[in-house]
Amino acid sequence: MVVRVGILGASGYTGGELVRILSGHPQAEVTLVTSQRFAGQALSEIYPQLQGVAGPDGTPLTCRKLNASEAAEMCDVAFCALPHVTSMGVVPEMIEAGVKVVDLSADFRLNNAETYAEWYGTEHTAPELLHEAAYGLPELNREALKKARLVANPGCYPTSILLGLAPMLKEGVVDLEALVSDSKSGASGAGRAPSQATLYCEVAEGFKSYKTIGHRHTPEIEQEIGRLVGQDDVKVRFTPHLIPQSRGILSTLYVRTGEDGRDAKQWRQVYEAFYADKPFVRVLPEGRLPATNHVRGSNFCDVAITHDPRTGWFVVLSAIDNVMKGASGQAVQNMNLMLGMEEGLALGAFPLFP
Amino acid sequence: MVVRVGILGASGYTGGELVRILSGHPQAEVTLVTSQRFAGQALSEIYPQLQGVAGPDGTPLTCRKLNASEAAEMCDVAFCALPHVTSMGVVPEMIEAGVKVVDLSADFRLNNAETYAEWYGTEHTAPELLHEAAYGLPELNREALKKARLVANPGCYPTSILLGLAPMLKEGVVDLEALVSDSKSGASGAGRAPSQATLYCEVAEGFKSYKTIGHRHTPEIEQEIGRLVGQDDVKVRFTPHLIPQSRGILSTLYVRTGEDGRDAKQWRQVYEAFYADKPFVRVLPEGRLPATNHVRGSNFCDVAITHDPRTGWFVVLSAIDNVMKGASGQAVQNMNLMLGMEEGLALGAFPLFP
Amino acid sequence: MVVRVGILGASGYTGGELVRILSGHPQAEVTLVTSQRFAGQALSEIYPQLQGVAGPDGTPLTCRKLNASEAAEMCDVAFCALPHVTSMGVVPEMIEAGVKVVDLSADFRLNNAETYAEWYGTEHTAPELLHEAAYGLPELNREALKKARLVANPGCYPTSILLGLAPMLKEGVVDLEALVSDSKSGASGAGRAPSQATLYCEVAEGFKSYKTIGHRHTPEIEQEIGRLVGQDDVKVRFTPHLIPQSRGILSTLYVRTGEDGRDAKQWRQVYEAFYADKPFVRVLPEGRLPATNHVRGSNFCDVAITHDPRTGWFVVLSAIDNVMKGASGQAVQNMNLMLGMEEGLALGAFPLFP
Amino acid sequence: MVVRVGILGASGYTGGELVRILSGHPQAEVTLVTSQRFAGQALSEIYPQLQGVAGPDGTPLTCRKLNASEAAEMCDVAFCALPHVTSMGVVPEMIEAGVKVVDLSADFRLNNAETYAEWYGTEHTAPELLHEAAYGLPELNREALKKARLVANPGCYPTSILLGLAPMLKEGVVDLEALVSDSKSGASGAGRAPSQATLYCEVAEGFKSYKTIGHRHTPEIEQEIGRLVGQDDVKVRFTPHLIPQSRGILSTLYVRTGEDGRDAKQWRQVYEAFYADKPFVRVLPEGRLPATNHVRGSNFCDVAITHDPRTGWFVVLSAIDNVMKGASGQAVQNMNLMLGMEEGLALGAFPLFP
Repeated sequence: MVVRVGILGASGYTGGELVRILSGHPQAEVTLVTSQRFAGQALSEIYPQLQGVAGPDGTPLTCRKLNASEAAEMCDVAFCALPHVTSMGVVPEMIEAGVKVVDLSADFRLNNAETYAEWYGTEHTAPELLHEAAYGLPELNREALKKARLVANPGCYPTSILLGLAPMLKEGVVDLEALVSDSKSGASGAGRAPSQATLYCEVAEGFKSYKTIGHRHTPEIEQEIGRLVGQDDVKVRFTPHLIPQSRGILSTLYVRTGEDGRDAKQWRQVYEAFYADKPFVRVLPEGRLPATNHVRGSNFCDVAITHDPRTGWFVVLSAIDNVMKGASGQAVQNMNLMLGMEEGLALGAFPLFP
Repeated sequence: MVVRVGILGASGYTGGELVRILSGHPQAEVTLVTSQRFAGQALSEIYPQLQGVAGPDGTPLTCRKLNASEAAEMCDVAFCALPHVTSMGVVPEMIEAGVKVVDLSADFRLNNAETYAEWYGTEHTAPELLHEAAYGLPELNREALKKARLVANPGCYPTSILLGLAPMLKEGVVDLEALVSDSKSGASGAGRAPSQATLYCEVAEGFKSYKTIGHRHTPEIEQEIGRLVGQDDVKVRFTPHLIPQSRGILSTLYVRTGEDGRDAKQWRQVYEAFYADKPFVRVLPEGRLPATNHVRGSNFCDVAITHDPRTGWFVVLSAIDNVMKGASGQAVQNMNLMLGMEEGLALGAFPLFP
Repeated sequence: MVVRVGILGASGYTGGELVRILSGHPQAEVTLVTSQRFAGQALSEIYPQLQGVAGPDGTPLTCRKLNASEAAEMCDVAFCALPHVTSMGVVPEMIEAGVKVVDLSADFRLNNAETYAEWYGTEHTAPELLHEAAYGLPELNREALKKARLVANPGCYPTSILLGLAPMLKEGVVDLEALVSDSKSGASGAGRAPSQATLYCEVAEGFKSYKTIGHRHTPEIEQEIGRLVGQDDVKVRFTPHLIPQSRGILSTLYVRTGEDGRDAKQWRQVYEAFYADKPFVRVLPEGRLPATNHVRGSNFCDVAITHDPRTGWFVVLSAIDNVMKGASGQAVQNMNLMLGMEEGLALGAFPLFP
Repeated sequence: MVVRVGILGASGYTGGELVRILSGHPQAEVTLVTSQRFAGQALSEIYPQLQGVAGPDGTPLTCRKLNASEAAEMCDVAFCALPHVTSMGVVPEMIEAGVKVVDLSADFRLNNAETYAEWYGTEHTAPELLHEAAYGLPELNREALKKARLVANPGCYPTSILLGLAPMLKEGVVDLEALVSDSKSGASGAGRAPSQATLYCEVAEGFKSYKTIGHRHTPEIEQEIGRLVGQDDVKVRFTPHLIPQSRGILSTLYVRTGEDGRDAKQWRQVYEAFYADKPFVRVLPEGRLPATNHVRGSNFCDVAITHDPRTGWFVVLSAIDNVMKGASGQAVQNMNLMLGMEEGLALGAFPLFP
């Protein structure tokens, strides 16, 4: 069986990455790529690194304008890599036409239409799908994903934070008031649209925080933490930063566990058990710390647990490649699950280092 | 008056930076540079960028082996840029010989010889100077520095953290148990000695934490915070990270202020008043956040205060150039004060951007 | 005497750099900065690193819209950092109003209006000034600059190439047909306007040539080489490349000298003599090669001469900081000369390394 | 059939890359990795990115000391990633024991033992193998490789230069006296051994040439150009540079073709024909230029042909990933050919961008 795959909004970094991953997928083939801006152009004109990528008939893949009914005919499953707000205008038609969808935008991540409106400044136009959409973090939600028609692919920051915290949160001992997530991302997270802030000369040698207060990944993080601890109305401190590099997120997670007496070693065992059957999370042995260049180009999430007995803080570190496990890699992992394929198909590559 | 300056241990990044700064100092002249490893070589062979830097007689500066009595004859003031432990073997002789010393190592930063022994794994050999040494953070300790014979130049991380927190700490409302300093530094902080960990290929695209637990700047931070709040035995969570860039430190400081009701705007006023007569701290206006490339090559520390009303956390951000305000720039600022010169001499340059 | 300086088009990298340099100039003060796009905004909003830079009355410098007659009243000398074509619309008025001008655009570099039209695709609107304008390479044209009302500040690539070749060209032995200039520049040369090609993610890890054939600096290089060898119609192979870094140009210059028998050592002596009284060119000793990070932030041009006896090629290497000696630093050097000041005022800083 | 593979000298960048590539090879499995320095350590301690890579029995791969007879028992084919000189001490034993060898060092690239002695400063200790060794550039030498017991994997610079020039050289019209190769490489080419010159702070923002005259890849380039044009004693100007990035080589090749009248378009057709059945060379269409980040992590070599009619120069641009097509990727390609497998096995991944 070879599944026909569409990529809607193929001109961004996540779109290019999807094509790269799927070019090595044994049971999927890209039959449609769309881009409003580059319609009519070969994909290799937008992405020179993809020179030679061919469509199903062996000719170069060429971008088309998005037409939902046409798309529905041309593919069995679609990755929607469109901007938020745009995405919720397209996804319902695709679903209705019987196409399974992995949506990489933020549009279907929040269960609550009011929360969406509050953080995105616009009413949700497909609220009925908010409840149906499965949250696409396979390590926490695998069974639901196998049955989903629509997967909301998680944000890159939430992925790093949730995978770093899930085993501890599940144990119910985390002091949520004290919880701090200090997260750092490479510039690819800002996308490929030209802007002064992401020019080479502005980013190089220029570490900083941005949107220190009120980043839109906050409600997503809070919703999923709430689900893990079985509690509504969780509020979390989350601070994003920009690293002068292209790929990679590292989250430094500050955790207090109250009266719970377990030390780092014991927690490491909890993590190892929790992730035993999840091949993309690597719980690092004692003495090893994650680094973004040790996961680059791969679908791995590396996690380390450290403890500072002088102050009582746990510091959990979690690293992913934001374009892979934080976006396109995870999206393919979700597709694999949705379609009943082996979860890790096309995602087995070890990181590119250096 | 032109003061004769010696630089002991000139072959590291801080030594090279001292020469650069002092080449523009109107009242000081470098008369001695020492390096065990490069004795006999012109400074421009070690530091090609310094091609053309001349000593007092107009000939190129050449490295000599360190000889304390000779050094005492050749200079009025010395910057000691030697490694810790080595430094405390040299400084007492210099002081005794009447040379004023700014020590850039960690050897005279801690007041307590036992704390030193605990964190540095060796007994302090000049404990009598620990009490005499003035802690060289001019914004907090200017008067003591004017009278000092020996200045302990602060660590780069402590400088960024203390300048970011001082006005809040002074007000006595900071919850020290909740205090978290998540700090990030460029690779120059690791020095110029060859090591695999600081190779270009290991650092590029490779954000990570290191020494997550137990970094040696911790007791220095705790001691100075203790002094600001008038309390012994302060313990603070401090997490260092390595940024893929050469220069710059950004500290993200998480602060809770308990019952104190002031918001970010009110605190900004407190900071502005506190730093009104300290020209090297720039309290940023609302809406602006510091970035390491906005202070690079300068002696500035940029500080911003933000507040997250949803969780109650303050997030204070503080950026410095670790080689300048975090080391050599601050050292020259200290020298200026010790010698009764204008505090900002040779330090007025605006940052190099991009 | 303090000269009043205007910066027209202050919002680009060269404009910001001019403000930085002039903030340390003892005989000049910036009284006017213009920007169409940012009129009304404080300069520190455009350039956060310049927070604290003050105008003549001590208040922050604020951008104004360009008004030539107003500008003529507010300054004695103006740096025109506007885009080409725009510049030639403004400069004549300024000159006429008695303001001396250093123009950083390409508009007054070529003597020949037809050549201008051919390479820039538009007629020159002030051809009468083309002959008057002095070509602003002080090392080759110092006397003319002292008398100039209008200086055409050289392109960054031509500066690196001409300083690398001038002593050899002057000797009349260079085989111009064989001459190749393979030049590499950091991304700041592309300016601060948002574009996909200069995004961090596109530039990092991405060395390439661009405009391999037909870069607009070609006729400028040819004109000035022609002047040095006393020959019209010189044609030269010049290939620009983009380096993944912010600042710096390195030109690798391939030269054949026909029957001339001098070796690298002899040529080094020729270079040393030629540049003996030009403080910003550092002819490197045998065994040392220039690097862009050894001139960064400075006005130096480092030059090395090497010879390959096996093939007969000379390889001359020349490095500058494109924003300094390649643009704003050289512009201030030209201003100093025009106004009868010491050539190196405000330009004495050694490079920032690392 | 699954072939057992040994990697001798696995602790460098090329060794780590071989493990990465082979982890995705359907017909090969790594059974042995050796490292003198790290014997006894798990590979993931040396290369954290390889956490989880398992050997044939499913346990983590662990480094052993090199023992040739043991090695010969444990593998059918060996990649020798040892330093030159060391390599020629090991390879003969392996060959004798019936192990096929791809040698990544320089030891078997030159046919002539005297040339080796001249450039490497030591006598060759296995001169009898110099003639037997097949030069491992499959695009030029595929048939010989299929029959080889010993393959000399080409140098990274020669690979980029030869693939860029081969079709032109084959036509016999290139003026070899005028030929210039200006080549630029990322820092991974310098290896993983600690050295001051390759520290992050020394490389960043620091483009430069090194070994401008006399780089050891010169005789290899000359030998293979000589073979292509059927001429002995070819001498070529080759200038290496260091780019501030980890991976990638771009060679800018200056070519004169004398009386030959073909233009860029016609040459492009020649190149396309020449490389029609060589899947790893991508001849770029008109208007497109290669960039190192468009081949990163892949085995592709991208080539563009441009022509400057004003001066008569052709400028051919050739980009590879030096760790892949310039070393480990090409080595696996050679292994595939030696063992009668499909040439591109495990090498099909498209570049990682950004």
